[in-house]
Amino acid sequence: MFTEKQLIERIRCRFSELSTGIGIGDDAAVVDLPPGSSTVLCSDMLVEGTHFRRSTHPADSLGFKAIAINVSDVGAMGAVPAFVLLSLAVPSDLGTQWTEDFFDGIAKACEVFDVHLVGGDSSMAEKIFIDVSLIGHVRPGHAVSRRCARPGDGIFVTGSLGGSAQGLTLLEHGTPADDASVRRHLYPVPRHRVGQELAPHVTAMIDVSDGFSVDLTHILEESGVSARIEALRIPRHPGADFDLALHGGEDYELIVTGKGIPDHFEDIPITAVGRITESTRHHQIYLLTDTGEEILTPRGWQHFA
Amino acid sequence: MFTEKQLIERIRCRFSELSTGIGIGDDAAVVDLPPGSSTVLCSDMLVEGTHFRRSTHPADSLGFKAIAINVSDVGAMGAVPAFVLLSLAVPSDLGTQWTEDFFDGIAKACEVFDVHLVGGDSSMAEKIFIDVSLIGHVRPGHAVSRRCARPGDGIFVTGSLGGSAQGLTLLEHGTPADDASVRRHLYPVPRHRVGQELAPHVTAMIDVSDGFSVDLTHILEESGVSARIEALRIPRHPGADFDLALHGGEDYELIVTGKGIPDHFEDIPITAVGRITESTRHHQIYLLTDTGEEILTPRGWQHFA
Repeated sequence: MFTEKQLIERIRCRFSELSTGIGIGDDAAVVDLPPGSSTVLCSDMLVEGTHFRRSTHPADSLGFKAIAINVSDVGAMGAVPAFVLLSLAVPSDLGTQWTEDFFDGIAKACEVFDVHLVGGDSSMAEKIFIDVSLIGHVRPGHAVSRRCARPGDGIFVTGSLGGSAQGLTLLEHGTPADDASVRRHLYPVPRHRVGQELAPHVTAMIDVSDGFSVDLTHILEESGVSARIEALRIPRHPGADFDLALHGGEDYELIVTGKGIPDHFEDIPITAVGRITESTRHHQIYLLTDTGEEILTPRGWQHFA
Repeated sequence: MFTEKQLIERIRCRFSELSTGIGIGDDAAVVDLPPGSSTVLCSDMLVEGTHFRRSTHPADSLGFKAIAINVSDVGAMGAVPAFVLLSLAVPSDLGTQWTEDFFDGIAKACEVFDVHLVGGDSSMAEKIFIDVSLIGHVRPGHAVSRRCARPGDGIFVTGSLGGSAQGLTLLEHGTPADDASVRRHLYPVPRHRVGQELAPHVTAMIDVSDGFSVDLTHILEESGVSARIEALRIPRHPGADFDLALHGGEDYELIVTGKGIPDHFEDIPITAVGRITESTRHHQIYLLTDTGEEILTPRGWQHFA
């Protein structure tokens, strides 16, 4: 095992300091965001026993995912991720290999998403606790909230849904990480670049972390509108059933609303799945299936705990 | 108990959104730092069983302290704290009263330190985890690191040392929070305003979180120097013995090095305790006592775990 001091030294060695600033190891990091930009801030935790099990989730996937899910949040604002703070608490009897693998995942994510680890905190704890804060930037006034979806807007989904939830089930039954669904659960690929590209054209945007039904409902409640969704248009991940696509969490695709949205960005399809409608008191999803129309009750991602 | 959704709603109700930005409840917060400033970033965790015990530490003190210790870190850079991200994981059977009290402490700290809670994350966990990230600002090039202490610089300490460690001992023996030392442990008062004031005049600065001997050693190692400390000059908190003053943690006073440092800021004394000296291989503290000179081995704050 590492002591706290060794852990900090290890982080410091692996994540070289920013050439222009004060980084890991001082009281705080000092960085420069692009002049004239607004600052975008978010945090996301991964807690052992709640978000993952040590027995099924490889350490490097947790490092990668802890950053990826924050990149997804920043991307869902149409913003650019830049700097990472990592707080890590681990049991005192955890082997050094776990920590090394975890940092492999952190390093990989920093490289893939072009963000820099600049600080954080470390501690001992009975269970593993990972909290990442991500600091990004956006042109002032250009961040996309969940609040401005308007009746008549189209509703669109990037990529496909249900893969991560399916992957988790397969993972728990012993399927290895080279399965496409399992990879999607362990190493999610956020759509931040799509979010940045679409931002000027959309009225509301959110990433699918809790599940399509729950996350779309966030937009509806924040914007004071309802939605009509055509069930058959929902893009399902290969092998994922309809239920997983509607309610499975952690896909980190984007739900966007607006007009004139393109049908793809690079090789990522953007699928029209419905339309925003007016509503007064109840802001909800009407699901059109081949047997008629029903109200879709939001039912999201269930943690282990 | 609160569900996660209720918890977020409760936070949202208590901490009103920033009038000019997007705050709690969206994918990420969007804020504006003063134009032309550098961004200062840090995180500090409080983990149940490691940093505190639920039985002895009141919930509101944990909320207050989680913010105060980050304010201290930002202040030790000579920077101004501004925005807070809070990640909170709590057991599912924790009563709502604990959470309300905790938020009382968060709210109090936000008011006292003039910072704004703009986002974060919440989760369930077996033990309580609190992680606060603080985002502040500083004039570019004006942040004070630990790296630039020079031989001949004086070494100074704000306020007094040893009170927090003494307070913890008293707290564990049942002394109530109205005792001055216990209050110092539970509701630490960071010296960020002193740090901002002194910043233009100092060569290195650090806050005393792990203990004077450990934290001064950080400056020495980072700056490649040694220190000669006059034991009798160390300002002790009333009732704290010499050992606690040298090695007790969590006082959140500042150690600064430089020349021409004033002897007080407002009503906070700033005491000269020694001098930076040259060193080559070993960067250490020479302690002058009435019986002679000895090398002071850094021996800091021991967590419960």
